[in-house]
Amino acid sequence: MVPGKVAFKGLAHQELAADAPARAAPAGLVPSGGRHQPCSSRRYRHAVPDRYDTVTFLSDFGLRDEFVGVVKSVIRELARHVTVIDLTHEIAPFDVRGASLALARSVQYLPSGVVLAIVDPGVGTDRRGVAIEVGGGEGVLIGPDNGILAPAVAMAGGAGRTVVLTNREYQLEPPGATFAGRDVFGPAAAHLCNGVDLAELGEPIDAAVLLPGIVPIARPEGAGVAAEVLWVDRFGNAQLNLGTDDIEGFGDRVRLRMGETVRSAAVVGAYGTLGPGQIGLVVDSYGLLAISLDRRSAAEELHLGPGDPVVVEPIGDEEGDGVATRVSFTPRR
Amino acid sequence: MVPGKVAFKGLAHQELAADAPARAAPAGLVPSGGRHQPCSSRRYRHAVPDRYDTVTFLSDFGLRDEFVGVVKSVIRELARHVTVIDLTHEIAPFDVRGASLALARSVQYLPSGVVLAIVDPGVGTDRRGVAIEVGGGEGVLIGPDNGILAPAVAMAGGAGRTVVLTNREYQLEPPGATFAGRDVFGPAAAHLCNGVDLAELGEPIDAAVLLPGIVPIARPEGAGVAAEVLWVDRFGNAQLNLGTDDIEGFGDRVRLRMGETVRSAAVVGAYGTLGPGQIGLVVDSYGLLAISLDRRSAAEELHLGPGDPVVVEPIGDEEGDGVATRVSFTPRR
Amino acid sequence: MVPGKVAFKGLAHQELAADAPARAAPAGLVPSGGRHQPCSSRRYRHAVPDRYDTVTFLSDFGLRDEFVGVVKSVIRELARHVTVIDLTHEIAPFDVRGASLALARSVQYLPSGVVLAIVDPGVGTDRRGVAIEVGGGEGVLIGPDNGILAPAVAMAGGAGRTVVLTNREYQLEPPGATFAGRDVFGPAAAHLCNGVDLAELGEPIDAAVLLPGIVPIARPEGAGVAAEVLWVDRFGNAQLNLGTDDIEGFGDRVRLRMGETVRSAAVVGAYGTLGPGQIGLVVDSYGLLAISLDRRSAAEELHLGPGDPVVVEPIGDEEGDGVATRVSFTPRR
Repeated sequence: MVPGKVAFKGLAHQELAADAPARAAPAGLVPSGGRHQPCSSRRYRHAVPDRYDTVTFLSDFGLRDEFVGVVKSVIRELARHVTVIDLTHEIAPFDVRGASLALARSVQYLPSGVVLAIVDPGVGTDRRGVAIEVGGGEGVLIGPDNGILAPAVAMAGGAGRTVVLTNREYQLEPPGATFAGRDVFGPAAAHLCNGVDLAELGEPIDAAVLLPGIVPIARPEGAGVAAEVLWVDRFGNAQLNLGTDDIEGFGDRVRLRMGETVRSAAVVGAYGTLGPGQIGLVVDSYGLLAISLDRRSAAEELHLGPGDPVVVEPIGDEEGDGVATRVSFTPRR
Repeated sequence: MVPGKVAFKGLAHQELAADAPARAAPAGLVPSGGRHQPCSSRRYRHAVPDRYDTVTFLSDFGLRDEFVGVVKSVIRELARHVTVIDLTHEIAPFDVRGASLALARSVQYLPSGVVLAIVDPGVGTDRRGVAIEVGGGEGVLIGPDNGILAPAVAMAGGAGRTVVLTNREYQLEPPGATFAGRDVFGPAAAHLCNGVDLAELGEPIDAAVLLPGIVPIARPEGAGVAAEVLWVDRFGNAQLNLGTDDIEGFGDRVRLRMGETVRSAAVVGAYGTLGPGQIGLVVDSYGLLAISLDRRSAAEELHLGPGDPVVVEPIGDEEGDGVATRVSFTPRR
Repeated sequence: MVPGKVAFKGLAHQELAADAPARAAPAGLVPSGGRHQPCSSRRYRHAVPDRYDTVTFLSDFGLRDEFVGVVKSVIRELARHVTVIDLTHEIAPFDVRGASLALARSVQYLPSGVVLAIVDPGVGTDRRGVAIEVGGGEGVLIGPDNGILAPAVAMAGGAGRTVVLTNREYQLEPPGATFAGRDVFGPAAAHLCNGVDLAELGEPIDAAVLLPGIVPIARPEGAGVAAEVLWVDRFGNAQLNLGTDDIEGFGDRVRLRMGETVRSAAVVGAYGTLGPGQIGLVVDSYGLLAISLDRRSAAEELHLGPGDPVVVEPIGDEEGDGVATRVSFTPRR
């Protein structure tokens, strides 16, 4: 029951008035001593020009706790010139697949710079942290080696130089267990922004040995195609792993088989063209097909969630409405 | 079932290892090719001085999906010097009225620059996107022409130059349907910040033809006044469309009729002066009257939500407590 | 029922077209007049070099309303060069203790600059607003004098110069009741960033008279230790007010008494080393012990929330598994 050596631990043992004497004075806002050391960042900051000015940040940390704020504070302290853009932090806890898809959807819109993607069920185990250069150095993706980065890396042109984040000189010393976002990934992002070369962050590795991302493949089933829900967005649209090519020739009405439920849907170019309560198969803003209702949640109505199987079939002449007009997918503006 | 031409669509069809070859290498973080083109932004960025340095951003996109992050990424890529301030993104889906009121409450505090307000039930239909100059060019409000901007524009001094966002040169080419925040509104904001003149974004239009905002009007009812709940905040305060002028002479206790429920309330200047469980009619920080409880949710207790009618009446001598003291609304500090 | 003099109040009384005439044109985005006045900020901004470039911001405002965005807008308008880092705004409403703990956990990672911590059940009453210098001027903590700042100040080395925020010259004039974040605390942060000296913000006060923070103290109970849940994080880990020192000699299995519930737990160094369904007492990333399950919520499973008592006891030889191996708390990486 002796007072802990770690500052915050010590706090657990007494009432503290605001004028209580200091037990630890780590870093940043506080002047000296310090459990987390900015390492050699400042040295590099002045030796080479700033390399990147933006970190795009995706995680399952949520916004209720201070996790995201602490990672951003660490980046700020190490690399003052960097702007952090939050992609989202409300990925479901431990949902690596959901995070990898969100990143893949976004990657073509991300500014040049560093991408930090942290969903990390294996934290505290032997899974590695990696940094992967893409686009000839236009960007670096950082995260655990659990497949979260793979689809985005592929879309960004494939992996360039890749390292495992083993160099402790560019990490923080934690007061307890490692919080990888704060102690490893965030500092790596900041140091890269300061001009530290990727090769300094750890040992090079062949990107071919990294864990692949698992993106489900649609396959023919009878006259139709067996697909899967990739994502349900805030508005209840259920995005499928199908493009318009996949339903070419199906006509402007299709049948959807979702478990026991069978419904017909209109194939349309925009949510707003659906009638009240009419189910649509809509080409969404990423170019994929989504099951939608106008201003209502199709996912809720049809009990759809990520990973659920959906078979899309053409409606035969005997049962369809006979309209064979090809649907135009010209984007509406 | 051939692989799609669109990068993300293609992803739906295979497992991707992190070292997979690129199918598309669009922009920003990725080096060339590219589905979204920054258009002529860079040209203008150097030709004229930066016009604005701040974009204030309000939407119903929520923070769970990557929508907000993607719009901010597009702005970042096009206009590196801009800081984006999130006003809120948790407007209820499609709640144009709620968004227009939040913007009206805030507008007098917003920094000079561009305001992006996107709640857009009509996305994909023929509704127009507009940009409206206010304050002699101190600011530009951008959003769909559905009334969302009207109250804020009025409070900012009325509309100056106004354009419909028709110039595709300042928009992104989407991989599927248009996501107006990402493809139209966000780029418009970024280009204005880069010094592109409003007139370049599209055709001029007379602001008088824009859809007006609907702000409910309180009206006399008997000895009292028939009001409406404008907003319920996180703390459960139910803001009414009433100022203190509207209850002048009512005294320091009033009767509230809310559907079948009738309750009396103390007219007070601060939440903290309410006794436990005492209902208050409190002048809030915007100068309007709110139905409140101290440290509890009045809205939950009284089942109040936005749009609900509330009649406020003076309590007559025969039933009141006889106190006729005028309430002082001097703000407490 | 005359139109109010306050701009927003006036809005409650009519339909407004986007080209309606202005009723008020306050500030920032709008050109002149103005209910909120930037006071003397600009004068100071040019007279002295910028003092701070970062404001770290914690509150219970939530992200659904525009409160956070308005405070950040005010800071932006007053101090254009400042970056605001959101620590979290989802502190439970009025939970001063929860906020003070989140701040204490974070403080050693915060960048030099101003910290704004606003959870303020006493808003509108006589509680004071204070600004406390720490770290020899490396930082200033601003918030209500209700104990929210005390643990963080102690961890940052104790209070230096301290003032009560009484100088109205550095505050905004509200249109109604004071919204302290917008009218007092935010402006104070911005003015400090502009180089205004702390002493100008109000009267000096002895930090010893400030309200202390209440951090619960663990105490011996029988052969064990009576602790308390400090925090339940997003992943359901229940952090206790115990460090590893507090269970020295207890061995690698302990008994947890939580009200009527009694369970045994493995003392381990990382979540990932727990078997499925196995309760762990894990040293967390702050160096405190947390009750955890691997990839599931221990707090939900065991019905634990902040403030709940937990007794941790060694398991005697007669009932234990006989393993006496000392647990190594070497952080896993």
